[in-house]
Amino acid sequence: MKSEKISELTTNRLSVYLRCLNALAESGEKTVSSESLAKRFHLNSAQIRKDLAYFGEFGVRGVGYYIDDLREQLQRILGLEKEHRVAIIGAGRLGAALADYYGFTKSNFSVAALFDADAEKIGQTVGGVEIFDIKNFADIVKKDKIDVAVIAVPAPFAQSVLEMVAAAGIKAVMNFAPTPLKVETGVKLKTVDLTISLESLSYFLAQPTSSSNGKNLKSDVSARKRVVESAKV
Amino acid sequence: MKSEKISELTTNRLSVYLRCLNALAESGEKTVSSESLAKRFHLNSAQIRKDLAYFGEFGVRGVGYYIDDLREQLQRILGLEKEHRVAIIGAGRLGAALADYYGFTKSNFSVAALFDADAEKIGQTVGGVEIFDIKNFADIVKKDKIDVAVIAVPAPFAQSVLEMVAAAGIKAVMNFAPTPLKVETGVKLKTVDLTISLESLSYFLAQPTSSSNGKNLKSDVSARKRVVESAKV
Repeated sequence: MKSEKISELTTNRLSVYLRCLNALAESGEKTVSSESLAKRFHLNSAQIRKDLAYFGEFGVRGVGYYIDDLREQLQRILGLEKEHRVAIIGAGRLGAALADYYGFTKSNFSVAALFDADAEKIGQTVGGVEIFDIKNFADIVKKDKIDVAVIAVPAPFAQSVLEMVAAAGIKAVMNFAPTPLKVETGVKLKTVDLTISLESLSYFLAQPTSSSNGKNLKSDVSARKRVVESAKV
Repeated sequence: MKSEKISELTTNRLSVYLRCLNALAESGEKTVSSESLAKRFHLNSAQIRKDLAYFGEFGVRGVGYYIDDLREQLQRILGLEKEHRVAIIGAGRLGAALADYYGFTKSNFSVAALFDADAEKIGQTVGGVEIFDIKNFADIVKKDKIDVAVIAVPAPFAQSVLEMVAAAGIKAVMNFAPTPLKVETGVKLKTVDLTISLESLSYFLAQPTSSSNGKNLKSDVSARKRVVESAKV
């Protein structure tokens, strides 16, 4: 496996492949070709081969990929062979929703703790996760081996929360506050800005081709792109 | 303005530019050069010029862009000169969190209605938004001129909800259920899959360069990419 950096679009595709392989494994299948994988999940077989060859996974002629082997490889590449422990900062509606988000509970990201400054919330639990005093953040991060933080506080507080998170030694942060944040070198920040997603929908609605005949959308390429898109953030 | 389709990465950048211009306008500024815009918001000035030239906006030599003019242009391109009315399907924790998401309330997407099948929830309000019976979806969409739907139901129900939404004539859908959905031609589906975002963080943590010295992350290009990334989904 090459160690140089690959783009987030590539890691997103690897995540999608892994999810597809998990579905095949659940239904008892042992091997799959890139063509079959592409066809069943509306992906691009050439892209699959290219992405996997990059990581030294070439499949076996006449057989395809061994599903269990490939799942292990992808899990290792994506750093998923170990559990990640997640802290959510902000126990408002969004933080609470994230604490029992179905997508998290079935992954190997487990929400270890919620944090808030509101004395009325501290000590309560949401979806089985306890809400701790934000003042004890660094201690609990250390004690609970938390390595991922999710920022779910109002925008004006997000930058100072990010700095607190980085100071506690956390290197991976997902931010839901709709505001650009400055992050120090060595910390990976991923902001999920739902307004920007909505604006891409709005752009689509504003195009003449978005009418119901949708002529431009009928090609196979567009169909594939739509499905791939539907599987990534 | 050219009418051919542009990529979602481009519309995401236009959304970011618009947000930056809004911030400049708020602080009373009238003009800005691409260099100054790039420097202040950690963007790429050549990319800004290229993106805007594509839409026929070239700026004025020695002056730069007129901020108010450019904001209007971008709003028109992104279909933001009119209000979009949003229905959220699923009034669980996530749906409720989205109903009063700060990023929505300050945009021109207004949440018009929540929908659920749970008789105990129907008739209640969340963040000022009423929860309606899902059975009346098509009628309320028509009456309230709803043009965007947000799917916030558990994964097993998402496909049938999407079909109901499309049948009601809605062309733009944001999906939070962590499952790939099939969508008919002419409907734009944007799935926000938080697990895939988490896995891109996990990939980062698994790299040797994610240690605190972060040597590979110190270039200006990486810094710019991080900031751009922090402003998009």
